[in-house]
Amino acid sequence: MQDLTAEILTVIKKRPTQSHKGTYGRVVTIGGNKQYGGAILMSTSAAVHAGAGLVTCVTAPENLSALHTFVPEAMFVSSHDYSTLVDVIQSATVIVIGPGLGTEDFAADILQIVLNRVTDDQYLIIDGSAITMLADVKDQLHIMAPHGQLIFTPHEMEWQRLSGIKIADQTEENNRQKQEEYQATVVLKKHHTKIYAPQTPTMRLPIGGPYMATGGMGDTLTGIIAAFMAQFAHDDPQSALAAAVYTHSAIADELSEDAYVVLPTDIIERLQKFMKEHSK
Amino acid sequence: MQDLTAEILTVIKKRPTQSHKGTYGRVVTIGGNKQYGGAILMSTSAAVHAGAGLVTCVTAPENLSALHTFVPEAMFVSSHDYSTLVDVIQSATVIVIGPGLGTEDFAADILQIVLNRVTDDQYLIIDGSAITMLADVKDQLHIMAPHGQLIFTPHEMEWQRLSGIKIADQTEENNRQKQEEYQATVVLKKHHTKIYAPQTPTMRLPIGGPYMATGGMGDTLTGIIAAFMAQFAHDDPQSALAAAVYTHSAIADELSEDAYVVLPTDIIERLQKFMKEHSK
Amino acid sequence: MQDLTAEILTVIKKRPTQSHKGTYGRVVTIGGNKQYGGAILMSTSAAVHAGAGLVTCVTAPENLSALHTFVPEAMFVSSHDYSTLVDVIQSATVIVIGPGLGTEDFAADILQIVLNRVTDDQYLIIDGSAITMLADVKDQLHIMAPHGQLIFTPHEMEWQRLSGIKIADQTEENNRQKQEEYQATVVLKKHHTKIYAPQTPTMRLPIGGPYMATGGMGDTLTGIIAAFMAQFAHDDPQSALAAAVYTHSAIADELSEDAYVVLPTDIIERLQKFMKEHSK
Amino acid sequence: MQDLTAEILTVIKKRPTQSHKGTYGRVVTIGGNKQYGGAILMSTSAAVHAGAGLVTCVTAPENLSALHTFVPEAMFVSSHDYSTLVDVIQSATVIVIGPGLGTEDFAADILQIVLNRVTDDQYLIIDGSAITMLADVKDQLHIMAPHGQLIFTPHEMEWQRLSGIKIADQTEENNRQKQEEYQATVVLKKHHTKIYAPQTPTMRLPIGGPYMATGGMGDTLTGIIAAFMAQFAHDDPQSALAAAVYTHSAIADELSEDAYVVLPTDIIERLQKFMKEHSK
Repeated sequence: MQDLTAEILTVIKKRPTQSHKGTYGRVVTIGGNKQYGGAILMSTSAAVHAGAGLVTCVTAPENLSALHTFVPEAMFVSSHDYSTLVDVIQSATVIVIGPGLGTEDFAADILQIVLNRVTDDQYLIIDGSAITMLADVKDQLHIMAPHGQLIFTPHEMEWQRLSGIKIADQTEENNRQKQEEYQATVVLKKHHTKIYAPQTPTMRLPIGGPYMATGGMGDTLTGIIAAFMAQFAHDDPQSALAAAVYTHSAIADELSEDAYVVLPTDIIERLQKFMKEHSK
Repeated sequence: MQDLTAEILTVIKKRPTQSHKGTYGRVVTIGGNKQYGGAILMSTSAAVHAGAGLVTCVTAPENLSALHTFVPEAMFVSSHDYSTLVDVIQSATVIVIGPGLGTEDFAADILQIVLNRVTDDQYLIIDGSAITMLADVKDQLHIMAPHGQLIFTPHEMEWQRLSGIKIADQTEENNRQKQEEYQATVVLKKHHTKIYAPQTPTMRLPIGGPYMATGGMGDTLTGIIAAFMAQFAHDDPQSALAAAVYTHSAIADELSEDAYVVLPTDIIERLQKFMKEHSK
Repeated sequence: MQDLTAEILTVIKKRPTQSHKGTYGRVVTIGGNKQYGGAILMSTSAAVHAGAGLVTCVTAPENLSALHTFVPEAMFVSSHDYSTLVDVIQSATVIVIGPGLGTEDFAADILQIVLNRVTDDQYLIIDGSAITMLADVKDQLHIMAPHGQLIFTPHEMEWQRLSGIKIADQTEENNRQKQEEYQATVVLKKHHTKIYAPQTPTMRLPIGGPYMATGGMGDTLTGIIAAFMAQFAHDDPQSALAAAVYTHSAIADELSEDAYVVLPTDIIERLQKFMKEHSK
Repeated sequence: MQDLTAEILTVIKKRPTQSHKGTYGRVVTIGGNKQYGGAILMSTSAAVHAGAGLVTCVTAPENLSALHTFVPEAMFVSSHDYSTLVDVIQSATVIVIGPGLGTEDFAADILQIVLNRVTDDQYLIIDGSAITMLADVKDQLHIMAPHGQLIFTPHEMEWQRLSGIKIADQTEENNRQKQEEYQATVVLKKHHTKIYAPQTPTMRLPIGGPYMATGGMGDTLTGIIAAFMAQFAHDDPQSALAAAVYTHSAIADELSEDAYVVLPTDIIERLQKFMKEHSK
């Protein structure tokens, strides 16, 4: 097991002069039913601010106004429009599914559509209620795994639901075994977040703090991960992921100097400057 | 009677390293019909910025877009969806009811649902039109009181309606008697706000000023109180409440150095920094 | 004729310690059909930021979300809800009608309702398309005038429509004559705006500049005037009005140091600080 | 071929003291279906912030709330309301069509309406999907050209679609030939953007960088071009256009000092200050 340090941020490369939006990937964020619309807005905005080339948000039609006002840089697809959903999945570099998705029937439909379509050269970040829904059908996970590069971002209770390992039993060994079984990467969110990635020593996040314990923090992380995978995963996907996780908490640490609680929207606002300061 | 001083802010404790969103409570804010939607947005945003772990806003469906744009960190429940309303009440640490709620029939329904469900270990902050509606049925107050820890936040006219005590007669003795009868805490908002809490000397707020006389100021206070009760009430609820009331006006005093009128949204924006400066 | 100077800003009085929202008046802003919704948002937000105690915006139902997001401090009334419209008019201190109102049938209805209800102790600011509609029925103006204290805020073409005086003929004498006929105050917006008020020498605004020539600037002025009349008109309404007009352009002048064009929303944001700096 | 330098910014003239909104032109921005609503919001806001006198946005009705919240200074026309569309086209100084317009049937309708109505003294900026739709009917281009002063803003692939010249063959000579055939100006967006204008040497943009490779960047450019044409095109339209293109990238260069990726909304926010610094 190794502790992540600021060195991981060397992942944030200076951009090549000759490039265009396509160079920095297409991110699709899927989530936000009526009740939890804010979650997918934060994921989407985080992806935009962290430098993804093009970002499309698939969400409940009720969230259109809020999306366009909050982050006009992103595109909208109604979560009822399965046909356009399939189109945007097919052209995606990275897909996020779960923030505020809920567990209603149509959420399950969408998750199924995504799992059926995702391909080996795409990253699929599975968060929140999408993890919960998968937990109910986890026997299918090993079937599903080969078709996409999966990244799960559960907190401990969601990990328990998915893996069947009780929180008290979530040891290095047990977690590793499940990660290998799933052929997926697992970002286990907790006091010191751990990253279990294939063929890589476990990484542990020594930074972050309790000022991050507020609604939407995990949703924001998914957007940062998506943008980092879209831009920096080519050579070393494990490091790109680790750098995203590190960035999220490092910004929170900085902001906590002046804030009792650090809000997701504060982190989003700071991404461009932080990444500039650490880009080589 | 004692005057509150900045010492009350020691209530704002440094957060324990090992903690999560649940540690900082679940706040439910209920209000905002079509006409007064802004009121509940401000209450909700104040609760988020003051550090509540998770905040859910129950409001008219017309306010969904504004809520998600204004404070994406909060979750939405339609005020017509009584079934989900019951769910979020049952898992709440603190409930606010009243900001911009109005007095239409469905508002009375919701108030009744909340009063029926609230339990002894929950705080229920009753503000604005919810006070007015209760005033019409005040004989039931002593029946209701035991089922939740009630905090009323009336201005003088609302207190007159509820207690039957005319403004000119709102003396220490008369107010105290009613407070005891209701077995509730009363935050009587006026030039020097007073807090009448059970088994505690009356507290008087010596700060604040006329730059606070603007629409939405009281709504914002309810959100701050909710967040403080959710985080800091365990050992000493009276002090947590007093600290919330003090914080609201202390921020206004600071901002009034540079502003003729201090707006609710200005106070909300300053909460994180103020609480950081005063946390121990 | 006298030139306005910064001395007029002594109108902005330090607020009395003992006061409440009611002390600073109730402003009702009426306008904003679907096409011109932004106009009434700016008027409303200007009134809030300039210190009006309570502000209610009567606008097309389509504008509810934008209003609550843009200025949550304000209350909403649908322009189709004539019954609530009558209620808010009756309790108003100052009414603004016109910004983005349009000239459709229902706009004429609303204008008529307002003219029928306004009373001698209320200020009625008539702007934009409301002026145009009145121009069509100007013979009724002398009938209407006694029922409210009217303030017209036309630009030169609107003044031509209303008064029948062609722009080239808009001399001191001609303008004065019409102003007296209407028993109203006229703020004639142009390069050097002039204020024709009853029993008062004509006032001329020597400040402001071409960086203000942008959509929404006049709408914003109506909100500032409304807030100033609501707060400062008691002793000397002419000076309160003049101070509002002066404030609007003085802020623009300051902001133009750093901005090629000064936007209405920039002026709104600066109101609280400007008024603080000039309050006695 | 000549490289643009900061000298082109002398186009940004100090405004004449005696002027009004009409002096700075009427811009109409047309685009934004449900999926791509953000695109037209950014174009519209850029036009407002770059100083256009009056800006009207023609977009899908679903985008009304987001428009009024994001840029209340702009007016709204539903893209389904062809009658009002015709009105605003007829009074326009500059028309932008394309950002987020999509290629659905009604988009084709609107494009046709605009092409039928545009007159020789109006500038028509054709961007995004409007270029794609024209590409399908390009034989009609020489018929259309005389009726308006056309400015195409394609990226290389859109230019290939429109002109039939493959990206590898997009040489000075080939591009020039097509530009002359179309009797239009072409802003070919790429690493070093080139401007092919009638009777003018080709201009090349030596600034800008990969921090601009993000969604919405081109949409924002259209708004800046529109505002510059509306204000500065009288004497020398080619320079006005070039100054707009230069301004867009020069601001991005400045902001990139502190930002890994520069977002369209960041550029919009900076326009007023940049233009002030460079106005003579």
